[in-house]
Amino acid sequence: MKKIKASIIGATGYAGKELIKILSGHPEVELMFLGSSTYAGKNITEVFPEFINSLNKKLVKPDSACISRDSDLIFTALPHTVSMDIVPELLNKKGIKVIDLSADYRLKDTMVYKEWYKKEHEGINKKLLSQAVYGLPELYLDDIKNASLIANPGCYPTSVILGIAPLLSHHVIEGEGMIIDSKSGVSGAGRKPSLGLHFAECNESFKAYKVLKHNHIPEIEQELSSIYSGENNLEKQKNIKVTFTPHLLPINRGILSTCYLNLKSIKSEEEILGLYQKFYNDSPFVRVFTPPNLPETRFVTDTNYCDIGFAVDKRVGKIKVISVIDNLIKGAAGQAVQNMNIMFGFSETCGLI
Amino acid sequence: MKKIKASIIGATGYAGKELIKILSGHPEVELMFLGSSTYAGKNITEVFPEFINSLNKKLVKPDSACISRDSDLIFTALPHTVSMDIVPELLNKKGIKVIDLSADYRLKDTMVYKEWYKKEHEGINKKLLSQAVYGLPELYLDDIKNASLIANPGCYPTSVILGIAPLLSHHVIEGEGMIIDSKSGVSGAGRKPSLGLHFAECNESFKAYKVLKHNHIPEIEQELSSIYSGENNLEKQKNIKVTFTPHLLPINRGILSTCYLNLKSIKSEEEILGLYQKFYNDSPFVRVFTPPNLPETRFVTDTNYCDIGFAVDKRVGKIKVISVIDNLIKGAAGQAVQNMNIMFGFSETCGLI
Amino acid sequence: MKKIKASIIGATGYAGKELIKILSGHPEVELMFLGSSTYAGKNITEVFPEFINSLNKKLVKPDSACISRDSDLIFTALPHTVSMDIVPELLNKKGIKVIDLSADYRLKDTMVYKEWYKKEHEGINKKLLSQAVYGLPELYLDDIKNASLIANPGCYPTSVILGIAPLLSHHVIEGEGMIIDSKSGVSGAGRKPSLGLHFAECNESFKAYKVLKHNHIPEIEQELSSIYSGENNLEKQKNIKVTFTPHLLPINRGILSTCYLNLKSIKSEEEILGLYQKFYNDSPFVRVFTPPNLPETRFVTDTNYCDIGFAVDKRVGKIKVISVIDNLIKGAAGQAVQNMNIMFGFSETCGLI
Amino acid sequence: MKKIKASIIGATGYAGKELIKILSGHPEVELMFLGSSTYAGKNITEVFPEFINSLNKKLVKPDSACISRDSDLIFTALPHTVSMDIVPELLNKKGIKVIDLSADYRLKDTMVYKEWYKKEHEGINKKLLSQAVYGLPELYLDDIKNASLIANPGCYPTSVILGIAPLLSHHVIEGEGMIIDSKSGVSGAGRKPSLGLHFAECNESFKAYKVLKHNHIPEIEQELSSIYSGENNLEKQKNIKVTFTPHLLPINRGILSTCYLNLKSIKSEEEILGLYQKFYNDSPFVRVFTPPNLPETRFVTDTNYCDIGFAVDKRVGKIKVISVIDNLIKGAAGQAVQNMNIMFGFSETCGLI
Repeated sequence: MKKIKASIIGATGYAGKELIKILSGHPEVELMFLGSSTYAGKNITEVFPEFINSLNKKLVKPDSACISRDSDLIFTALPHTVSMDIVPELLNKKGIKVIDLSADYRLKDTMVYKEWYKKEHEGINKKLLSQAVYGLPELYLDDIKNASLIANPGCYPTSVILGIAPLLSHHVIEGEGMIIDSKSGVSGAGRKPSLGLHFAECNESFKAYKVLKHNHIPEIEQELSSIYSGENNLEKQKNIKVTFTPHLLPINRGILSTCYLNLKSIKSEEEILGLYQKFYNDSPFVRVFTPPNLPETRFVTDTNYCDIGFAVDKRVGKIKVISVIDNLIKGAAGQAVQNMNIMFGFSETCGLI
Repeated sequence: MKKIKASIIGATGYAGKELIKILSGHPEVELMFLGSSTYAGKNITEVFPEFINSLNKKLVKPDSACISRDSDLIFTALPHTVSMDIVPELLNKKGIKVIDLSADYRLKDTMVYKEWYKKEHEGINKKLLSQAVYGLPELYLDDIKNASLIANPGCYPTSVILGIAPLLSHHVIEGEGMIIDSKSGVSGAGRKPSLGLHFAECNESFKAYKVLKHNHIPEIEQELSSIYSGENNLEKQKNIKVTFTPHLLPINRGILSTCYLNLKSIKSEEEILGLYQKFYNDSPFVRVFTPPNLPETRFVTDTNYCDIGFAVDKRVGKIKVISVIDNLIKGAAGQAVQNMNIMFGFSETCGLI
Repeated sequence: MKKIKASIIGATGYAGKELIKILSGHPEVELMFLGSSTYAGKNITEVFPEFINSLNKKLVKPDSACISRDSDLIFTALPHTVSMDIVPELLNKKGIKVIDLSADYRLKDTMVYKEWYKKEHEGINKKLLSQAVYGLPELYLDDIKNASLIANPGCYPTSVILGIAPLLSHHVIEGEGMIIDSKSGVSGAGRKPSLGLHFAECNESFKAYKVLKHNHIPEIEQELSSIYSGENNLEKQKNIKVTFTPHLLPINRGILSTCYLNLKSIKSEEEILGLYQKFYNDSPFVRVFTPPNLPETRFVTDTNYCDIGFAVDKRVGKIKVISVIDNLIKGAAGQAVQNMNIMFGFSETCGLI
Repeated sequence: MKKIKASIIGATGYAGKELIKILSGHPEVELMFLGSSTYAGKNITEVFPEFINSLNKKLVKPDSACISRDSDLIFTALPHTVSMDIVPELLNKKGIKVIDLSADYRLKDTMVYKEWYKKEHEGINKKLLSQAVYGLPELYLDDIKNASLIANPGCYPTSVILGIAPLLSHHVIEGEGMIIDSKSGVSGAGRKPSLGLHFAECNESFKAYKVLKHNHIPEIEQELSSIYSGENNLEKQKNIKVTFTPHLLPINRGILSTCYLNLKSIKSEEEILGLYQKFYNDSPFVRVFTPPNLPETRFVTDTNYCDIGFAVDKRVGKIKVISVIDNLIKGAAGQAVQNMNIMFGFSETCGLI
């Protein structure tokens, strides 16, 4: 069988690097173009010496027409607001598919996007937005199969939504008062040097950041509202609000989200375990832990797994859900490849661990 | 002026080591005995080579009578339940003072202690418990001045109580629904090797632990109940319950607690800042950050400071309080020395930074 | 084609864990027994939760007869001196092959082994020793093909020998005065907790250890002597002595060896690069860096690569060789699987990256 | 007694920050100006929130005339080649003293400086160079007492020279063939963000860098040549050449240098220990370890100590010397304050630990 031709625009960030790593070992994929405006002209091994011997490829200027011409699929791993205008150019070619790792096509409500990202969807962007599928396979498998444009979920939202979805969809918990305390490794902040990410400034320390305005909040709220209401029509949904605080962990990779949720009534841990297991029965990348076992970020490092554990705190009538992912794999590149596998009819786990 | 004679029992754990470090540089203290059942007979520099040149002292068997005879003050840095029976022996000598870093004399309700620590206070232990003062200087300065026995607070409780006290005592927040998500460096778990604290098992990873039953919960609840009710009589207090989750950070030192608290009504950040500043006006070791600034654990590393920041989240009607300490200093040895300073009439900050 | 049946004795150490990880994804291998005296009876996922979903297998008592009966190949990942007596029992079954990750069958001279490991080879052990092949594929490919017993090289020796071999075999450098300064991540010291490997004792620090007597010294000297002399006959070899110092890096994985070698005469870097490239032309897991590029340990993390770089220091007439490996992969489990691939006629890189 | 007035130019780098920390707690010093071209106008607590409560001071433009007018002593913590022209301006005021933490006044031979730093000393710079004293108190105590301009030693040279000096001055080792393998924490590279110092690029990894051309080489060679020859006259000195390789440790602070030195004849460890002890008898900040004990970087973290250990390797006729310092304290700010103490007649250890 013929391999599909896949290209990456934004190949030299951390998500791009993971995409290269996964795709270059994927049996169904031929890696075509690696686009990078910063490093165009250089060999990828000059940027990432890890690829010596395994990949010999020049980085190219991210020329949309040129890249789309010879690609069946393009991954865009670009900064938010930059992706918005490039995606339509890429989708110009008939039959081509795009998996966008930015936030630009994730939020269904353009007003909400504008509020958090300070840019507006207009014309073709707006039209594409209505066609884009939120690429969380555990929730939207069928939509992903037929999508041309995937809005690949954010890293925090992936960990949070997968942790809460089973409880919320079964109305085991209240929609109100959800508190999410998330912690992420430093690679989540990208590869661009800055004082806050300078080694000696974050090593051996820990802090909260963007405590009121992290732009993953609307994404989490959109999806939880949809799950809670059991429908996608924004106008008919109950508007769920969450309290969310991101923190910076002095490790390279990994997100752990601790979710505090109000139980409608006390349930046994067995009952809740059953509910999770059923919900994720067909999801190869979600592993549910039997209480009192709980996941640690290292269990999922370099894998596409989302590990979920929980504990019922009867003293206070709450359930604590702990959810971990590798922010660059299940939180970015791995999930993107999982979406690719589904879109092209490959095994969902192909090329991923 | 004559120096006081201070001894340490349990000198070779991490809290003991910090006590040695601080006391050996303290202008009012002569370090008498360093007690250690494990290392008795060795020189302290064989256990901690860092002290070569600065301290030349043999570790002794922790013989209570012998140690108390020549001491004005004894710090006990022993495991919980072990301290309980040694403290009375030490206090046998008239006029001697003891600062106990264990949990054994912190919980006023013996039934609660028994429930969480599986041991019962009887006879002299029970009597001493009623005399012990909870050594959090920012709340109990006057009681500490006259105390013979100080129950030095736990590390998590110190960060949590200091973060919440001003809001709770002014009834700016509800007593219900407090959620505390805490993260601690590895030294908090002590110096005894175990698989969970083995370098390659916790480095580059992050996890929650004891998610339902950490024994700092009753300590936090005792103090918050007392603050909320404005009185110490257990029977008249409202019984406050908190949701508390500790996590293990892959760093040596530092605790950051993120507290999610329900505002009774929305207040401006200025108003709340003023409230904090007033509350801690005479507390040299609490630093309140002006929003939107927030503390990071590195700001307090190797110091006795507790740094506190906060953010009012109007969207959800909550206030987030972030509180950081060095778990071995303000969370243990530094606070113990602060208590010593108060008990003996030295400047509260003497020998501490 | 039928898969081979492979078992592991000592499956719950770090090398054992890596073997499980690699073998459970290897297309030619069926994983039979996982032996562990400590954890026999437990499921492997109770020891390593990472394997939930991917491996469901009980650990068994390491009964040699029972394990060898149903295995084509056994990996022994046991402490030094323990392996010595188990290997002969396993080899009792005709046609079975053993790859021993301990040092027990690496040193050809039994007197040298006795001097460094304090135990003597006798009877069958001595006989097997003479048949064992030192499993460094880049040097002994043909011998490995036909071997029944492989002595899998140590981690430090792998990095050092691969770095120096091309220069020594071409007599570009002196055999005298070689100085090797090596640095290893903490996993190299094993999974057994001890104070020296306790997180807070080695995190944020660096030290040298066993500066005079690390038992990888005789292994390095044996192989360098053989390469220098161009023959295996111990009595005809020149006896090469090296100066070797191991250090402990506060990271999980990775070895970097800095080798200081005396050039017989100054050569250009181009000439030396050519020599390395030719030497490793058929070695898929050695990557030679073009000066002035140099490898970093992260380039080989989780891979079976050995990355080598060098610089000619004309000022002092020396060449500096920098060689990096992942101590658990190329330094242990990965190299063992590479040996397996060669012994069973699989592609040398099968199942490895 | 009146305090001296000290100012810092380049107060917002890592060395500057340490200077502030030490000087603000120094009983003999009043901190006058904190100069910073980048942050002039801001309060120091906006750059380093750690100083809230302990220091309330505005950063000023580094105007030489203005700063020197009201200072008795100025520390310049500026980049190499930048300091060269500012120092003469500061020294314009009669009686003022300058401690320069850059390399600009360390190398006595202007041709050597030019070769390694690509800039030339002319006019006043050249004149000042001849008056500058290399500020290593363990070697140049008397010269420092009377100096107006101190060239504060580099971090690597401090660790190396202190480790080797006793052996070299007693001609116990050869002057030829010295090999120095040094490892430094990341703060040594400064506070300016760059990709190589980005957290996720150096965390969990290890590398060598500048393997042929680190500009601390001529500084080490100048001092070792002088010690070996027993005189300062450059023309009469034997020109000693060393092999030096720096490496980057994924920790914040600390340097460990492993020195491989050729013994002229085998000496006992007792004899060599005696020699070290005698050499450093009056040096409060050098601690010599009794074999087989060896220092670790954490032993000196946040202190001005240089810890030295050694091992005689009879097998190869060499001595291995291990020397550790905190690169920001004994390797920069602490040593500068030690020099200040000596220059102004304070106790050498005043304000330092």
